[in-house]
Amino acid sequence: MNSIGASIAQKLNMDPLILQALQEDINYEDITTNSIIRKPTLGEIQLICKEKGILAGIDVFQRVFWLLDSKIKVEKKFKDGDRIHKGDLIALITGDVSVLLSGERVALNYLQRMSGIATYTNDMVKALKGTNTKLLDTRKTTPNMRIFEKYAVKVGGGYNHRYNLSDGILLKDNHIDAAGGVKKAINMAREYAPFVHKIEVEVENMEMFREALEAGADIIMLDNMSLDDMMIAIDKAKGRAKIECSGNVNLENLKKYASIGVDYISSGAITHSAPILDFSMKNLRIL
Amino acid sequence: MNSIGASIAQKLNMDPLILQALQEDINYEDITTNSIIRKPTLGEIQLICKEKGILAGIDVFQRVFWLLDSKIKVEKKFKDGDRIHKGDLIALITGDVSVLLSGERVALNYLQRMSGIATYTNDMVKALKGTNTKLLDTRKTTPNMRIFEKYAVKVGGGYNHRYNLSDGILLKDNHIDAAGGVKKAINMAREYAPFVHKIEVEVENMEMFREALEAGADIIMLDNMSLDDMMIAIDKAKGRAKIECSGNVNLENLKKYASIGVDYISSGAITHSAPILDFSMKNLRIL
Amino acid sequence: MNSIGASIAQKLNMDPLILQALQEDINYEDITTNSIIRKPTLGEIQLICKEKGILAGIDVFQRVFWLLDSKIKVEKKFKDGDRIHKGDLIALITGDVSVLLSGERVALNYLQRMSGIATYTNDMVKALKGTNTKLLDTRKTTPNMRIFEKYAVKVGGGYNHRYNLSDGILLKDNHIDAAGGVKKAINMAREYAPFVHKIEVEVENMEMFREALEAGADIIMLDNMSLDDMMIAIDKAKGRAKIECSGNVNLENLKKYASIGVDYISSGAITHSAPILDFSMKNLRIL
Amino acid sequence: MNSIGASIAQKLNMDPLILQALQEDINYEDITTNSIIRKPTLGEIQLICKEKGILAGIDVFQRVFWLLDSKIKVEKKFKDGDRIHKGDLIALITGDVSVLLSGERVALNYLQRMSGIATYTNDMVKALKGTNTKLLDTRKTTPNMRIFEKYAVKVGGGYNHRYNLSDGILLKDNHIDAAGGVKKAINMAREYAPFVHKIEVEVENMEMFREALEAGADIIMLDNMSLDDMMIAIDKAKGRAKIECSGNVNLENLKKYASIGVDYISSGAITHSAPILDFSMKNLRIL
Amino acid sequence: MNSIGASIAQKLNMDPLILQALQEDINYEDITTNSIIRKPTLGEIQLICKEKGILAGIDVFQRVFWLLDSKIKVEKKFKDGDRIHKGDLIALITGDVSVLLSGERVALNYLQRMSGIATYTNDMVKALKGTNTKLLDTRKTTPNMRIFEKYAVKVGGGYNHRYNLSDGILLKDNHIDAAGGVKKAINMAREYAPFVHKIEVEVENMEMFREALEAGADIIMLDNMSLDDMMIAIDKAKGRAKIECSGNVNLENLKKYASIGVDYISSGAITHSAPILDFSMKNLRIL
Amino acid sequence: MNSIGASIAQKLNMDPLILQALQEDINYEDITTNSIIRKPTLGEIQLICKEKGILAGIDVFQRVFWLLDSKIKVEKKFKDGDRIHKGDLIALITGDVSVLLSGERVALNYLQRMSGIATYTNDMVKALKGTNTKLLDTRKTTPNMRIFEKYAVKVGGGYNHRYNLSDGILLKDNHIDAAGGVKKAINMAREYAPFVHKIEVEVENMEMFREALEAGADIIMLDNMSLDDMMIAIDKAKGRAKIECSGNVNLENLKKYASIGVDYISSGAITHSAPILDFSMKNLRIL
Repeated sequence: MNSIGASIAQKLNMDPLILQALQEDINYEDITTNSIIRKPTLGEIQLICKEKGILAGIDVFQRVFWLLDSKIKVEKKFKDGDRIHKGDLIALITGDVSVLLSGERVALNYLQRMSGIATYTNDMVKALKGTNTKLLDTRKTTPNMRIFEKYAVKVGGGYNHRYNLSDGILLKDNHIDAAGGVKKAINMAREYAPFVHKIEVEVENMEMFREALEAGADIIMLDNMSLDDMMIAIDKAKGRAKIECSGNVNLENLKKYASIGVDYISSGAITHSAPILDFSMKNLRIL
Repeated sequence: MNSIGASIAQKLNMDPLILQALQEDINYEDITTNSIIRKPTLGEIQLICKEKGILAGIDVFQRVFWLLDSKIKVEKKFKDGDRIHKGDLIALITGDVSVLLSGERVALNYLQRMSGIATYTNDMVKALKGTNTKLLDTRKTTPNMRIFEKYAVKVGGGYNHRYNLSDGILLKDNHIDAAGGVKKAINMAREYAPFVHKIEVEVENMEMFREALEAGADIIMLDNMSLDDMMIAIDKAKGRAKIECSGNVNLENLKKYASIGVDYISSGAITHSAPILDFSMKNLRIL
Repeated sequence: MNSIGASIAQKLNMDPLILQALQEDINYEDITTNSIIRKPTLGEIQLICKEKGILAGIDVFQRVFWLLDSKIKVEKKFKDGDRIHKGDLIALITGDVSVLLSGERVALNYLQRMSGIATYTNDMVKALKGTNTKLLDTRKTTPNMRIFEKYAVKVGGGYNHRYNLSDGILLKDNHIDAAGGVKKAINMAREYAPFVHKIEVEVENMEMFREALEAGADIIMLDNMSLDDMMIAIDKAKGRAKIECSGNVNLENLKKYASIGVDYISSGAITHSAPILDFSMKNLRIL
Repeated sequence: MNSIGASIAQKLNMDPLILQALQEDINYEDITTNSIIRKPTLGEIQLICKEKGILAGIDVFQRVFWLLDSKIKVEKKFKDGDRIHKGDLIALITGDVSVLLSGERVALNYLQRMSGIATYTNDMVKALKGTNTKLLDTRKTTPNMRIFEKYAVKVGGGYNHRYNLSDGILLKDNHIDAAGGVKKAINMAREYAPFVHKIEVEVENMEMFREALEAGADIIMLDNMSLDDMMIAIDKAKGRAKIECSGNVNLENLKKYASIGVDYISSGAITHSAPILDFSMKNLRIL
Repeated sequence: MNSIGASIAQKLNMDPLILQALQEDINYEDITTNSIIRKPTLGEIQLICKEKGILAGIDVFQRVFWLLDSKIKVEKKFKDGDRIHKGDLIALITGDVSVLLSGERVALNYLQRMSGIATYTNDMVKALKGTNTKLLDTRKTTPNMRIFEKYAVKVGGGYNHRYNLSDGILLKDNHIDAAGGVKKAINMAREYAPFVHKIEVEVENMEMFREALEAGADIIMLDNMSLDDMMIAIDKAKGRAKIECSGNVNLENLKKYASIGVDYISSGAITHSAPILDFSMKNLRIL
Repeated sequence: MNSIGASIAQKLNMDPLILQALQEDINYEDITTNSIIRKPTLGEIQLICKEKGILAGIDVFQRVFWLLDSKIKVEKKFKDGDRIHKGDLIALITGDVSVLLSGERVALNYLQRMSGIATYTNDMVKALKGTNTKLLDTRKTTPNMRIFEKYAVKVGGGYNHRYNLSDGILLKDNHIDAAGGVKKAINMAREYAPFVHKIEVEVENMEMFREALEAGADIIMLDNMSLDDMMIAIDKAKGRAKIECSGNVNLENLKKYASIGVDYISSGAITHSAPILDFSMKNLRIL
């Protein structure tokens, strides 16, 4: 997402969520700040990084303040995707002190979570360096945070799997059973779903794999298969289908899967279990 | 929140968010499931726990399906707050197979995150056993997830700090500086904010502490002070103000703070960095 | 609607619908455009008319882009109501290329439908030239498009009947039966509904017509009556009530009705069955 | 609320309500104004006070026009809290005449109601002059008007009680009965509700009062007790709890309660039964 | 509005407002009630009238509880329009105690305001008894309360003027000036606005009156004219236009205007300055 | 979409739009019906087909009434996809007469438009009988009607192209120019967009075609190419890419394209220019 594309997405798809988050945090007013700051007061505050990682969400951070007051200025010293370190001055925010104080928490909540995901993703991506294997996210995102979290995955160097149930086909065991077999399931999906989507099938053994390959699956996800079987599958699929593997991925098995030539590895943990990256807003200065 | 109170909160405050999360995951239809399941088909599926922890969010899990189809039945074998283990059958969900498959991910996304928070919180709460110190959450929650996450903290045995900027007063360094001192800040807050809220002040040294205590602060948060100073403060505050301490709390310093008699310890990590608790929906059976 | 009145209506009543239409077309981002356009790029594109007709909706067209990016400029060469021809350059749109490409379809969908309605309406209106008969629309509009479609009817030279069920009274056969007769129905409506609305009654024969006229109906709609009866009715109603006729209006019967002096002819087809007027956005030029 | 704090509250919490009120009054367009004003026409109109009182809501008045057209200018001659008199020119509004005419009623509806409440409140507050008793509002506000009405109370010199059921604890007879006594109710609330809220209890006799005081209630509301009992209660509560009294407060009993040293008197009438303060928009001048 | 018509209006037009009002009062949960009522508890509570007047809004009162919990039962002893007295048992509400306590305030806020308006309206209507003059409301309603307040006016025996700026034409001095005279204004409105609406003109003197009458105004509002002029106008208008008079109507001038045969008198005070009618919910009984 | 899948889509994705359409038509109440029907009255009304075609939207028709009153019964005699004829009784609707009358127009507006699209689509589909070519829709749908219109296309026997800009890649001339060539554009899309989507490219000549084929495009849309070139392209693409052709499709060229083996033909007209299929609700009977 370049900054303009992002600006469309922000106006249409992110702003309503950010506004809602602000209303969640400011039900009618910030009583502490409004007790103290009784007249317009110009100030400046610093956004400081507190631990090393990958920055993600700096435009969302800025947008939080912008939605409160379009006169706030955010002077960014780093951009999304940059590697940052403890103590780095990430941005300088200037504007009315009430706005700086009232918007701080929501802005940080987005930034910290997004940067946490980018950082965690990037650690895995680095482990894949030198291979052709790509790291994918999943739909295991926090409710009403998907657009932010999937973006953070890309910032961290990962790739997005389908966005939701409407824009990708993934036939799992339950679907296959209900359809009466791999081939039937693939044919039903090909008949029903918009043809612009590839067909992905999750298989558990070589028989299912072969059936999927023959029925023309575009992507085959190998679930819990032996390394030997996986190698055979990857070999047979070459030029005919992409191979994805999923499951409880960690730095160790990640490398193993990559080494045998898996095309994609998907990980839920990068969105659902990444700890945040810590930032703080400090050194308020009245101007 | 008893189950009825919860039902009011769910209808008013949670349902709109859950519906939004469902729309995030189903933009127009679940193309995979609708490819395969072409006519109403009754089925049953199991919710299974995949690692030990504290269950939280089982009513939200149920509500996700209810919002898709009010005829879905969720037979709960455990309730929020229960300690659960790998392999436990948590609930049996019965209803149309399309609904079971299409609602699965959103239902799990809520349940896993809420149970993850309850479990992480509970680990800290157990460390406080035998003391009078209470564990508090913060406003460092995931945007648009606060009502779910603060509820999960309570399920885990923690307590809620203020819900948002409108229902609690917390004077921090920036407010104190802008007001021109601790006492002035307290008086301004007492004058401005609804008198039903207690006044909390964050202090960094004994001088500020004494000023806060004299000015009648109800709660004083000690920030980064030496253990010796903290002990003096706790002693002086007895019967006059509650003492909270915050910062990067871990199992070690948690016990130390509790041992000297701090009333409250607040932790952002319990909401922002808890990994999920893993569940799966398995063993679909057509009825 | 002058352009200022239109701007109020747009902000209050059209913008929410346009935003919704944009979100319908851009669920999270325009993946094609964002793949290609990675940095802000200024460009210019032409709006070209592809068949002759009446322009309607050029301000809505502009508003679609404005809602994506307030810096987009739309230099209009024609205005609503203008007769346009194949090949005419209708407008020049300048701004970020991402926005031009991502907003194109929604902007055209509005413009084409509105201009189609204005053109179709205008064909009928021209057939009424030289008579005192006015062409009316109905409530047979596309759901969630009424404000755009009724406006297009006016642009095409038609007039608006009631906007919805709340701002006009139209007693039909079912109402009359339920009330126990024309006179009773009129009296009940006069008693109940805000007195600022005229009372219109649909009648099927001369007896009902006479009853309606005597009971003081302001407008009488003749349904499926012979031309002879219609002429008598028009004569009797002169100075006492307006006469409307409806039904499957076409260019032929339209003229016949007008020739005998009907005040109003209403047509559902002008909104529900008008084909679009074709436009395209072409000749993108990077600036 | 200073003007900046107000601007955050306005964008987040008031604007959506004001927009809704505008849509309530302009379902699709102002047909009268749009009939007459067919092209952009600059004009100026005066906001005149028609009876003496306290001004409240001038920023909301301005915001109504701003939401219709951000180019409207409102030159304010008075500010909220000012005492105004019949004939005073309160503000000069300049901009497109369509906007001035179409926004007038909604703008006045807010201003008149808010100023009515501020004026009524101020009459009571003046009666308390020279005492330490503060006048409080209640939750007896007009639905979807609370943020405006509670603000008007403050403008009039009153103080806000809790904002809603989520940010304050008030144990009434029904809660006490259900809990099994005053002490039990207080303990249950202390255990359950966020500790940042004070605990208020409504008592009907001295026994309940004593129990509440001993159980550590922060605020005790005396309901329908004799003046003698009230005096004893106030004396005993000194330094331990605040005393509030409520009920059908009027200028007479208000002074009596204040004279015996009650801390707070709450009145529902200031929000639910204040007549409006009359204003008009006059002397439209085309520029 | 019969009860079925009301149920449509409630689902479409009132429910969203009532839900919003509930969310205004319950931001995340009723902390007091949820502290005490920890498990489902069936109870019954009485709605008691505290002063005499006209009941209005009992279905809205019921709907508030229904929206919280569809199992709540409201046994109504009176219906809208009934004359009620101090001490009357208006309804018996049965259901979960949490719901009874949490919904009480919003339910009463609607009921009290609506009954206050009906009562105030009815006092004026009674003064018109024996005349042909009808009492009208205005658009001077509380923002986001119009549907409730206009309904209450009808319950009180009044009649509704136009609902909003989109469904009625009222040409005032500013419109007339801008149009260049009464006749021009009427013609412009007749040309522009949907013909189903009558045309009303506000006039200040006999010359304007005559011009309006001749131009075919359907309703003429006499503004601040002498009784003598009014009598002449009423006489001339007979059979040609309806006469409305407005302004600061009170019981005295109301009768005077009625006595000379004015058709309609409109009053803003019935909606903007009616004090509430007091009710309480009492005698909670656990079942 | 089976009826259960449809019910999920309806609750999540259609109901909000249908409710909005009802509010568009009933701003505060149906004043005509509510004038006449003053008490609950059970009735039955028939839905009659007025011209032959394909039925589509009968569940949406039913849902309109259900959203007004869940007690309404719709006894369907035909289902979506059925061929129907003039005079056919399509359904019998039973319930409160107010609801039958107030919901009629919105219900018909959906049904008529959806059936019109299905009928128009089906005429084209029949022309393709005996070939392997499939008919596709486009994004040229009516704003805020896409989910209904794309569904109607499927009912008529057509297939859906991408749903919106987020779930399909279609590289057009502007994208290709901006990228610097077909191959670069394809690579950029492959790098950026979720890999679950196929890559479609629109080409204008054989050179672009060859480049697209070699770069691995999944679908190639031939724009305005000679039949000879198209035949060569189809031949070369066999087994490597699907061929789509678009443009002003009519019954004649449709067959020609099909005869040379094009895989897909897309048509905007089936959604943007289909006339409605006429239905009426008649023969109201009070029960």
